[in-house]
Amino acid sequence: MPDSEMTTGRLEAFSDGVIAIIVTIMVLELRARSQPTLAALWKVTPIFLSYGLSFLVVAIMWVNRHHLIHAVHGVTARLLWSNLYLLFWMSLVPFVTDYLGKNYHEPLAVALYGLDLFLCSSALYLLRIILVEQDSRDGNLADYHRSIQRKNVFSAALYLSSVPVAYLSVYASFFTFALIPAMYFLPEKRLAKQE
Amino acid sequence: MPDSEMTTGRLEAFSDGVIAIIVTIMVLELRARSQPTLAALWKVTPIFLSYGLSFLVVAIMWVNRHHLIHAVHGVTARLLWSNLYLLFWMSLVPFVTDYLGKNYHEPLAVALYGLDLFLCSSALYLLRIILVEQDSRDGNLADYHRSIQRKNVFSAALYLSSVPVAYLSVYASFFTFALIPAMYFLPEKRLAKQE
Amino acid sequence: MPDSEMTTGRLEAFSDGVIAIIVTIMVLELRARSQPTLAALWKVTPIFLSYGLSFLVVAIMWVNRHHLIHAVHGVTARLLWSNLYLLFWMSLVPFVTDYLGKNYHEPLAVALYGLDLFLCSSALYLLRIILVEQDSRDGNLADYHRSIQRKNVFSAALYLSSVPVAYLSVYASFFTFALIPAMYFLPEKRLAKQE
Amino acid sequence: MPDSEMTTGRLEAFSDGVIAIIVTIMVLELRARSQPTLAALWKVTPIFLSYGLSFLVVAIMWVNRHHLIHAVHGVTARLLWSNLYLLFWMSLVPFVTDYLGKNYHEPLAVALYGLDLFLCSSALYLLRIILVEQDSRDGNLADYHRSIQRKNVFSAALYLSSVPVAYLSVYASFFTFALIPAMYFLPEKRLAKQE
Repeated sequence: MPDSEMTTGRLEAFSDGVIAIIVTIMVLELRARSQPTLAALWKVTPIFLSYGLSFLVVAIMWVNRHHLIHAVHGVTARLLWSNLYLLFWMSLVPFVTDYLGKNYHEPLAVALYGLDLFLCSSALYLLRIILVEQDSRDGNLADYHRSIQRKNVFSAALYLSSVPVAYLSVYASFFTFALIPAMYFLPEKRLAKQE
Repeated sequence: MPDSEMTTGRLEAFSDGVIAIIVTIMVLELRARSQPTLAALWKVTPIFLSYGLSFLVVAIMWVNRHHLIHAVHGVTARLLWSNLYLLFWMSLVPFVTDYLGKNYHEPLAVALYGLDLFLCSSALYLLRIILVEQDSRDGNLADYHRSIQRKNVFSAALYLSSVPVAYLSVYASFFTFALIPAMYFLPEKRLAKQE
Repeated sequence: MPDSEMTTGRLEAFSDGVIAIIVTIMVLELRARSQPTLAALWKVTPIFLSYGLSFLVVAIMWVNRHHLIHAVHGVTARLLWSNLYLLFWMSLVPFVTDYLGKNYHEPLAVALYGLDLFLCSSALYLLRIILVEQDSRDGNLADYHRSIQRKNVFSAALYLSSVPVAYLSVYASFFTFALIPAMYFLPEKRLAKQE
Repeated sequence: MPDSEMTTGRLEAFSDGVIAIIVTIMVLELRARSQPTLAALWKVTPIFLSYGLSFLVVAIMWVNRHHLIHAVHGVTARLLWSNLYLLFWMSLVPFVTDYLGKNYHEPLAVALYGLDLFLCSSALYLLRIILVEQDSRDGNLADYHRSIQRKNVFSAALYLSSVPVAYLSVYASFFTFALIPAMYFLPEKRLAKQE
C-alpha cells in the first residue's frame, strides 16, 4: 500500500516535470524574433496567441490528469505506458504550436495542430478507460469519470473535425480550438444537460 | 485531509518546476553571442544584467508564493487557475528579459518588461486575495497577508508606472526595476511604518 | 531509516527531472525546420522518427530505473555515482538523436547513436550490479534482478553490435534499434524460455 | 516541525530542478554543430570535453549540497537567499561551459570558466557557514562540516588562481580544473592528513 502510493507519486512527479517543461519551452520561440519596433512586435502576435492557446490547453490537460491519477492507488504497466503515450503527444505541442504561430494562415499548420490535440485528447480518453477499469469498485467515482469522459469524447471529436475543416477555413478551426477550452470552464451539470 | 494536502504538494511541485525552468532558460541567450574578446563580452553585459535582475525578481516571486501556498490546506479550482494565470505571465519573463537585454535603450523593450512584471505582480496579488478569502479563519495569518499585500500593491503600481515612464526616460524605469526588489529586503516592520 | 528513504526520494526526483528534460528538449529540433508545405514536413520525418524512437528508449530506461531504485533502502556513494554516470550518457541522447535524424543515411550518425545507447544500457547494467550487491539479502529480488540483467546484457550487446554493423548497412542497425524496445514488451517468462 | 521539514523539501525540490536543467541544457550546444563527418565530429570534441567536465563539477556540487541541506531542520531567510545566490552562479555554468568549449585556447574563456566556478564554490562555502551557525548544537556534524570546508576553501582558492594562470598557460588552468574534481573522490581521511 505505501509502496504503490510512492509509485503514483513518482509517476506524477515525472509527468509534471515533462508538462512543466512543455509549457515553458514554448516561449523560447518568441525570443528568436524580437526587434525593438511595434511593427516587429505586432508580427510576433500570432506566435504569442498560439502560445497562449497551447498554455491553456496543456494546463487543462494537466488539471484533468491531476484529478485522474489522484484517484488511483496502484500503478500497473498499462497505466504507466498509456500515460507515457499521452506524454509523447503532449511533448509535440511545442512543435505544432510554433508551426501554427508562424504559419497561422496555412491549412497544413492548422490541421497539424488539430491533429496533435486530437491525439492528446484521445490518449487522455484511453488513460481514463484504463483507470475506470482499475478502480471500478467505487460507484461515485465511476459516475464522475463518465461525466468527464463525455467531455473528452466531445473535445476529441471536435479536434479531429478541425483537421479537414482547416482546408475549408482556418478560422472555423480556430473557432473550434477556442471553443474546447471554454467548454471545460462551463459548470459540470449544465453541460451534462445540454448534451 | 491527506487528500487535499497531496494536492497542494503537487500544485507546488508543478509550479516550482515551471519557475525552475524559467530561471534557467533565461541564460540560454547569453550563449548565442559569445566571441572570445573582452569587447564582445562587454556587449553581452546588458543581457547579463537583465538576466541577473530577472533572476532576482523571479526568486522573490518564488519565495513569496512559497510562504503563500504553504499556508493553504485545500486546493480549489479558483486557486488552481489563478496560480496558472500567474505562471503564464511568469513564463513570459524569459522573453521580455531577452528583449530588454538586447534593446535596453529602446522605450518599447523597457515598457514591455515593466508590463509583464506588472501582470505578474497583479496576478500574485489576485492569488493572495483568493487565499485570504479561503483561509480567513486565522486572524494572525490575515494580518500577515495584509502586510504583504501592501507591498504587492505598491510594487504592482510601480511596475505599471514604469510602462509610460520608459517613454520619458528608460533610466527612470531601470531605477524602478532596481527599487522594487530592494523593497522586499527591507525588514517587514520598518516598511509598514514608512507607508 | 526515514533518513535514507528521503535520500532515495531525492535521488529519484533529481534523476526524474533530468530524464523529463532529456525527453522534452529532443523535440526542440523539430521546430527549427518548419516550412508550411507537405514536402518540407516530409523532410522532417526522419527527425520525427528518431525522436519517437529515443522517446521510447528513454521511457523504457526510466521504467527500468524506477523498478530498480524503488527496491533500495539506502543510497551509498557508489550508487549515487553510478546513477550519475548513467544520467551522463542519457543526457547525450538528445544530441545523438538529432544527429541521427539529420543524417540517418550516414553510418557515422547511426554508429554514434548505437554507441551512446550501448553506453546507457551498460551503465544501467552496472547500476543494477551495485544494487544487487547492496540488497543481496532478499532471495526473490535477486531472481528478479537476474531475469532483468539477462535482458540488459542482451540489449547492451545488440547496441554494441549496431556500431560496426552501421558501416555495412544502416538498415540492419535500424532493425536492431527497433528490436530492442520490442523485446522489453514481451512477457517476462516467455523471453526467459526463448534464451 | 513537520512544517519546516516540508519547507526543506521544497527548497531541495526547487534547487534540484534548477540543477537538473543546468546539467541537461548544456548538451544543447553540441547539437548545433553536427555535420556527418569524423572531421566535423572531431571539432566538437572540446565542446564535448567541457560538457563532461561541467557535468562532473555540477554533479559534485549537487552531491555536496545534498549532504548539506539534508542535515538542516528549518529554512531561514538567510539560508534561502544564500542558496539562491549559489544557484545564480551555477545557472551561468552552461554559458561559461559553452564559451570554453568554443574558445578553449583563449585565456579569456578559460579565465571566465574559472571565475564562475570560483563564485560557485565560494557560494557553497558561504552556504555551509550559515548552516554550521544554524546547526552548531551537534558536535559530530560540526567536525564533518569542518573537514568539508577545508576542501571547499582549497578548491575555491584553486579556481580563483586559475583565472590569472589562464593568461600564462591555459593548460595549467585545465590541469587545475581536472585536479579539483579528483580531489573530491579521494577518501576523506587521507586528504585530512595530507593538508
